[in-house]
Amino acid sequence: MLRSVLRRLAPGAVLVDLTHDIAPGDILGGALALERASPWLASGVVLGVVDPTVGTERRPIAVATASGLPLVGPDNGLLLPAAARLGGVVAAVELTAPAGASFPGLDVGGATFDGRDRFAPAAARLVNGEALADLGPPIDAESLVELALPPLRSGDGQLDATVIWIDHFGNAQLNCRPGDIAGWGTPVEVAVGDGCFCAAVTRSFADLPEGEIGLVVDSQGRLALAAYLEAAADRLGVSTGSEVRLRRSRP
Amino acid sequence: MLRSVLRRLAPGAVLVDLTHDIAPGDILGGALALERASPWLASGVVLGVVDPTVGTERRPIAVATASGLPLVGPDNGLLLPAAARLGGVVAAVELTAPAGASFPGLDVGGATFDGRDRFAPAAARLVNGEALADLGPPIDAESLVELALPPLRSGDGQLDATVIWIDHFGNAQLNCRPGDIAGWGTPVEVAVGDGCFCAAVTRSFADLPEGEIGLVVDSQGRLALAAYLEAAADRLGVSTGSEVRLRRSRP
Amino acid sequence: MLRSVLRRLAPGAVLVDLTHDIAPGDILGGALALERASPWLASGVVLGVVDPTVGTERRPIAVATASGLPLVGPDNGLLLPAAARLGGVVAAVELTAPAGASFPGLDVGGATFDGRDRFAPAAARLVNGEALADLGPPIDAESLVELALPPLRSGDGQLDATVIWIDHFGNAQLNCRPGDIAGWGTPVEVAVGDGCFCAAVTRSFADLPEGEIGLVVDSQGRLALAAYLEAAADRLGVSTGSEVRLRRSRP
Repeated sequence: MLRSVLRRLAPGAVLVDLTHDIAPGDILGGALALERASPWLASGVVLGVVDPTVGTERRPIAVATASGLPLVGPDNGLLLPAAARLGGVVAAVELTAPAGASFPGLDVGGATFDGRDRFAPAAARLVNGEALADLGPPIDAESLVELALPPLRSGDGQLDATVIWIDHFGNAQLNCRPGDIAGWGTPVEVAVGDGCFCAAVTRSFADLPEGEIGLVVDSQGRLALAAYLEAAADRLGVSTGSEVRLRRSRP
Repeated sequence: MLRSVLRRLAPGAVLVDLTHDIAPGDILGGALALERASPWLASGVVLGVVDPTVGTERRPIAVATASGLPLVGPDNGLLLPAAARLGGVVAAVELTAPAGASFPGLDVGGATFDGRDRFAPAAARLVNGEALADLGPPIDAESLVELALPPLRSGDGQLDATVIWIDHFGNAQLNCRPGDIAGWGTPVEVAVGDGCFCAAVTRSFADLPEGEIGLVVDSQGRLALAAYLEAAADRLGVSTGSEVRLRRSRP
Repeated sequence: MLRSVLRRLAPGAVLVDLTHDIAPGDILGGALALERASPWLASGVVLGVVDPTVGTERRPIAVATASGLPLVGPDNGLLLPAAARLGGVVAAVELTAPAGASFPGLDVGGATFDGRDRFAPAAARLVNGEALADLGPPIDAESLVELALPPLRSGDGQLDATVIWIDHFGNAQLNCRPGDIAGWGTPVEVAVGDGCFCAAVTRSFADLPEGEIGLVVDSQGRLALAAYLEAAADRLGVSTGSEVRLRRSRP
């Protein structure tokens, strides 16, 4: 539906879907997916909608980033990790066009579907060449809602991390990078739930010991629990939000 | 595959997918999805394929609507609810080009795949500027197959409705609108299967009482059983086609 | 992500998704899906990524076919069945641009994601008009890795076939065609697992006897175990790779 609204209001728009795999209401999952994709984005306008707070006081916004790429969506934290990776927010506005203003005479009544009624129309206006400032009054970038990212606690050869993404292959990405375990060597002790094992640290999925779960520096540069040609997340019983403790191996 | 056929036969075509979520053979689900999207469609040609009757006498058709948007697909009722919302059918033709006529020399044998062999080629011809009348002989709009929509029975402060759509969030849309319970106030008694409860009627998902299932006027203007940030359909155990009885609350 | 990389490096590219339904690591499933679609492909460049061997010695390649359509992907057999159907490989090169060469200054570290880092950039260069020979040194087409296709054993009124695809409707496509059972007539005896039944052979899904599983010559010209408006694969408990024995009916 959003695709059709965009093409109707911006007939020249070329649509590129980034992902359809975000669970309903999973703002953090959506924010991290957008952040992952952001370095590789083509020029254009980014539209993000994960919006469990539709119908509340949550503001509809558009932000400009240092990279030149604008983002449109709800002010619930969804856009900020990507915006940070795109050089940071350099301007922000609140979308003030009434829902449905782009479709005069069409009112189906009922709850607002901001993706259809506010965000896609605003994105279409940017595609059509309107300036960010035309979409509404400026708002302070400091006032934008930030997500609480999962904390990473470390110290004394121990790192308490969190699974932030299960990819298509069942690899469980953690919110940490090789630098966080610099000097630990390989293997590393991994505690998940009631279980514990020692995991080799590798830079390639194919380098994982056969049949074993290891820690791979994945294609985002983050550490991921992975098994070669197998879904590590299923075997470990972890999902997004699961806590994983890494410890330096001890003699 | 249909996308590739369309691009091959109509190289200028811009493809916009409306949905991939229709269950195999679910003509009614497809028809309602197309009807939901129809007010927001960009200009172009609509191609719809939910076609369990392929290989029978069912006619392949294209219809023109008062809005100017043509629709192509099987004559099994799939296109008519959307056509009605687009102002009604103003002309209809039967597609008479033999399956595969657009791919001379390519015959893989076997059953016809009308989406690939008839509907997409016909849609491509419309995209390329051919007139509807060029696609085949006119047929009487009165002869088009209509779907039996779920009945809505009401009277005496009671409404027997049907679930017609479970959306991505687990909201269960009913085949009725606020006008059907005008004057009933809130809450409304809801009977589903062996269970019964009183549901608040709201105009926003965020206004639903926390943890409770209510009736929301959804973004299509229809009543939906919904719970805030939760899949109401799962909790109620309903699916498309489930019967739901609404009754005015009694003292 | 690949879509965005393609649009960024080849701003004029029009993207047509062929399928998203290949299971992780299922090279054969991907190869057969690409082969099925190949006769209907629009002109352009084909990008295929099913790549469990990323990070090993597996070569990244691009091949030109007699039809003029080039294919880009891993040298693991994925591309060859489609290339054969497109007239055969007429030239092949190894992609030698370092991963990430198209994104100078952007290095997230970690494992290579060849789809993003090698294949999509190479496909974009072809879309932009570069010649195949510009992408790397020529390699011998004879040296390309071929998939072991499931064997088809026949003789004496018996055919040992394999399920090679379960389609969206639950039809189980076999690796054989009507010519393989020419002269057998209908019905044909089918043995699957511990069960056995006699199946009518038809050329249309709608011609299948009601409630019965039969053998249909499907829209690819292959034999498929199918039931009208029902998922035959579920009823039979078969999946890709399941063995099916067909025998001529006996008096």
